[in-house]
Amino acid sequence: MGIDQFLKFFVPKDKKFFPLLEKASANLLTTAKVLRVMVNTADEAKRRELIKEIEHLEHIGDEITHEIFRELSLNFITPFDREDIHMLTSALDDIVDFIHGSAKRIELYKVTNFIPAIPKLAELIEKSAEELYTAINELRNMKNVGRIKEACVRINSIENHSDDIFDNAIARLFEEEKNAVEIIKIKEILSALETATDKCEDAANVIESIIVKHT
Amino acid sequence: MGIDQFLKFFVPKDKKFFPLLEKASANLLTTAKVLRVMVNTADEAKRRELIKEIEHLEHIGDEITHEIFRELSLNFITPFDREDIHMLTSALDDIVDFIHGSAKRIELYKVTNFIPAIPKLAELIEKSAEELYTAINELRNMKNVGRIKEACVRINSIENHSDDIFDNAIARLFEEEKNAVEIIKIKEILSALETATDKCEDAANVIESIIVKHT
Amino acid sequence: MGIDQFLKFFVPKDKKFFPLLEKASANLLTTAKVLRVMVNTADEAKRRELIKEIEHLEHIGDEITHEIFRELSLNFITPFDREDIHMLTSALDDIVDFIHGSAKRIELYKVTNFIPAIPKLAELIEKSAEELYTAINELRNMKNVGRIKEACVRINSIENHSDDIFDNAIARLFEEEKNAVEIIKIKEILSALETATDKCEDAANVIESIIVKHT
Repeated sequence: MGIDQFLKFFVPKDKKFFPLLEKASANLLTTAKVLRVMVNTADEAKRRELIKEIEHLEHIGDEITHEIFRELSLNFITPFDREDIHMLTSALDDIVDFIHGSAKRIELYKVTNFIPAIPKLAELIEKSAEELYTAINELRNMKNVGRIKEACVRINSIENHSDDIFDNAIARLFEEEKNAVEIIKIKEILSALETATDKCEDAANVIESIIVKHT
Repeated sequence: MGIDQFLKFFVPKDKKFFPLLEKASANLLTTAKVLRVMVNTADEAKRRELIKEIEHLEHIGDEITHEIFRELSLNFITPFDREDIHMLTSALDDIVDFIHGSAKRIELYKVTNFIPAIPKLAELIEKSAEELYTAINELRNMKNVGRIKEACVRINSIENHSDDIFDNAIARLFEEEKNAVEIIKIKEILSALETATDKCEDAANVIESIIVKHT
Repeated sequence: MGIDQFLKFFVPKDKKFFPLLEKASANLLTTAKVLRVMVNTADEAKRRELIKEIEHLEHIGDEITHEIFRELSLNFITPFDREDIHMLTSALDDIVDFIHGSAKRIELYKVTNFIPAIPKLAELIEKSAEELYTAINELRNMKNVGRIKEACVRINSIENHSDDIFDNAIARLFEEEKNAVEIIKIKEILSALETATDKCEDAANVIESIIVKHT
């Protein structure tokens, strides 16, 4: 055992990475909530306002991400493998980016045809964000590993469910929507939303690999 | 060092990762063969049955992948760099996922217009899967490094060939197909098939880097 | 430790990776310049010739990439973390690939409608390639870290600008272009160009993390 590893035993609790990861997951959860409200509102002015709010939250997320990356570069000692912290942070950042990307497209493409798959996917993103928030907050003390594992399993099953919703919505569009331009637009939105759930699964996979190593 | 880890120094040959990687590559090869038969059949009922078979093989592949990842988390000593095993496993998993993705879309989008590029790409995926199967089985003893290198070179050239087939098929669709919805559908299928050959190349690149380090 | 590896401890400065990375970034810059000229020319024969030139440069880039990867496998000692060299090389290779991909599509799809976003994105790719060239050439001596940081900040802001250009161009296409096939074509080209700027940002992020560790 090197002296550095030895010293680590005396660092009682990480004071940097846990608060930052918790902050990132809280910001993600807020973003997901605003998305869900946004795609369910019929009021266009309200929708535009909520899209602006998502854009603002995406900037905050970027700042948290950069803060974690800077800490990673400066700190030799981290509570988990550096790669795991890096991958988890990137995945959380990606989720917010894809939420923001779908919101931006809804505005830019002037989407008005909110087919049921759009609010449904937004709801699933919010659920995954809640599970990630719980799992990341439990990482700090590792007292409730069962709860963390449960959250990861749920996120995986939400992702499978999102895949099916996406595939079926596209198949339905091909059958029912005769306007190809409209198909392209909606497909772009659904695709950004579905990728957000993929990124939630990426985050859950990193968390799973962290707990396997630490239990 | 724990006693378990110590004992592993006396395990003369890896008994875990090689059989699992061989299993993953055998499962991939079977999946690729079913795909090739599926896109060449004119019998719709038969096609649906084969798509179900691909879905089943994809689940088996997922299980093998998770088994390898779990072993990676638990084992301190691995026959190659952990990252290489992780990346090779992920690439094999991705290939099966993209085969499954293209099969699922063929069913969901009710594709009936099997333009020549579809069976052609399926044939190239099968060839790459055969080369990967050979290369991975040779990894165990490293007696025939020349054969492994050959397989990797062939997979790279198959991927280049697939790129051309994809690009030309899309260009032809733009010229000949007047129905934009049909273009979008076929483009989605071709794109999933072409990405499967990209992932074969990713797998070959990992294998190449493994043999460079071990010879 | 072999004698070769031992001797390397006495190699005071890296003689391999810096020249190769500089070569890769010079090749990228040339490719970006040819792209910018190509999308601005109205002469079809000239355009075809420049696309062939881009294809040739992409092959040269591939060779440099493979050379760096081979060196990485053979060398125990590298001037930066192996992962960073690997990621930076891959990012540079990806940028050239996406430039080549967009050029190839312009030819194959017989694009004639060069909407303003195409030359605009090509210009931004060239600017990012210039910044990368500067940053990578400064990495060798690290005397001008401020200049490297500046380049990375600029590349990030170019990428944000590219995103906006892409999004607005797509939104405009949806409004003005009534031919869905034309929308799909142009969207494919813009998407390849925009991804090239994403890959420039990936390269800049690796460079940033290298300088944080070395200063």
